[in-house]
Amino acid sequence: MIEDRLRELSIELPTPPSPAGSYIPVVTTGNLAFVSGQIPMRDGKVIFEGKVPEQQSLESARDAAKICIINGLAQLKANLGSLDKIRKFVRISGFVNSSPSFIEQPKVINAASDLLVEIFGDMAKHSRIAVGVASLPLNSTVEIDMVVEFST
Amino acid sequence: MIEDRLRELSIELPTPPSPAGSYIPVVTTGNLAFVSGQIPMRDGKVIFEGKVPEQQSLESARDAAKICIINGLAQLKANLGSLDKIRKFVRISGFVNSSPSFIEQPKVINAASDLLVEIFGDMAKHSRIAVGVASLPLNSTVEIDMVVEFST
Amino acid sequence: MIEDRLRELSIELPTPPSPAGSYIPVVTTGNLAFVSGQIPMRDGKVIFEGKVPEQQSLESARDAAKICIINGLAQLKANLGSLDKIRKFVRISGFVNSSPSFIEQPKVINAASDLLVEIFGDMAKHSRIAVGVASLPLNSTVEIDMVVEFST
Repeated sequence: MIEDRLRELSIELPTPPSPAGSYIPVVTTGNLAFVSGQIPMRDGKVIFEGKVPEQQSLESARDAAKICIINGLAQLKANLGSLDKIRKFVRISGFVNSSPSFIEQPKVINAASDLLVEIFGDMAKHSRIAVGVASLPLNSTVEIDMVVEFST
Repeated sequence: MIEDRLRELSIELPTPPSPAGSYIPVVTTGNLAFVSGQIPMRDGKVIFEGKVPEQQSLESARDAAKICIINGLAQLKANLGSLDKIRKFVRISGFVNSSPSFIEQPKVINAASDLLVEIFGDMAKHSRIAVGVASLPLNSTVEIDMVVEFST
Repeated sequence: MIEDRLRELSIELPTPPSPAGSYIPVVTTGNLAFVSGQIPMRDGKVIFEGKVPEQQSLESARDAAKICIINGLAQLKANLGSLDKIRKFVRISGFVNSSPSFIEQPKVINAASDLLVEIFGDMAKHSRIAVGVASLPLNSTVEIDMVVEFST
């Protein structure tokens, strides 16, 4: 049970954050669930703001990436009913708010990838995109979206 | 009928713009249609150019986002035969040509999201990504792509 | 046979590059394969670094895009067993490491699109996104990911 594993890791799923716009957090089609871009929001506030490395260090950006993943899992739990329904993490896209010379996006998004594998084991190994972007909604340091396969 | 609704809203679907490169506007796989990135093109010309907020205001960028959606619907109509075949808007990705300090991408892409709901009703509620990018093809202010589920 | 066509074109598929992080190169779901973002890596080294047009010309960026495609095909061959299983190229997303004033992303990614059609013929015509980003992993000039439909 994934919830037991989350407790072992002392990870608490938050109330899933409300979308920052006129959209919904998760849409399913067939047995795929598309999760909207998640930002490092906690209790309604973005807690990692600004670009790497000027306003946030690599290490903070990695923390931000983990919160994006935890928020995404909270969205999936709310939509699917249980995280145990997830069969595959198909695609993770990571957008890092980057100064033009920052090139360590993989290290930032690795924190997200590693957390998924820590929670779900090897079945969480996913395909991935990581890019550095000029800016992000609400000045977030990281935005991550997911596509997962679930069992009905 | 969606076409009636478009008339009520005085929205006219243009001739779908030609791709700005060696690709096609829509590819279907199973009951999903992937629409190529649409830019604010009308009659073969990009009509919103440059970055927000220097060259385009938030309000103009919102207008640009609406044109991207209208162009995307024109592409879907050409491919599927009728917009009434659309069952779900699965994913909208919005790329906003942003100066490094612009952080209101959600407000820009909300214009796209709201327009879809205005036309199609609640069934148009979609998952979404919104990011700020360093530059866009042909200096477009916004680029939006879509994944929709359709009935065959 | 696609391998014969590759030989005609003097294209050699490399050993598929290892991911630059904790993820895997390809995940399949149903009859779709999602290929992770590919960068212009050869023999473990990124061979096109920096932004267009300052550090790389348009022409070099086009060469970089071709290497991304060849690496992606190498990943697909390793995963599917044979490139002859590919039925459709559903989506190509091209991220170009761009200075804020560079707007010819379509010309860069056309090199990728054209190469696919040269190899696979008209069935390779795909939907596409092309954007300019602030920076890319390992300072790569281009990153390209793919979604393909395959026959089982």
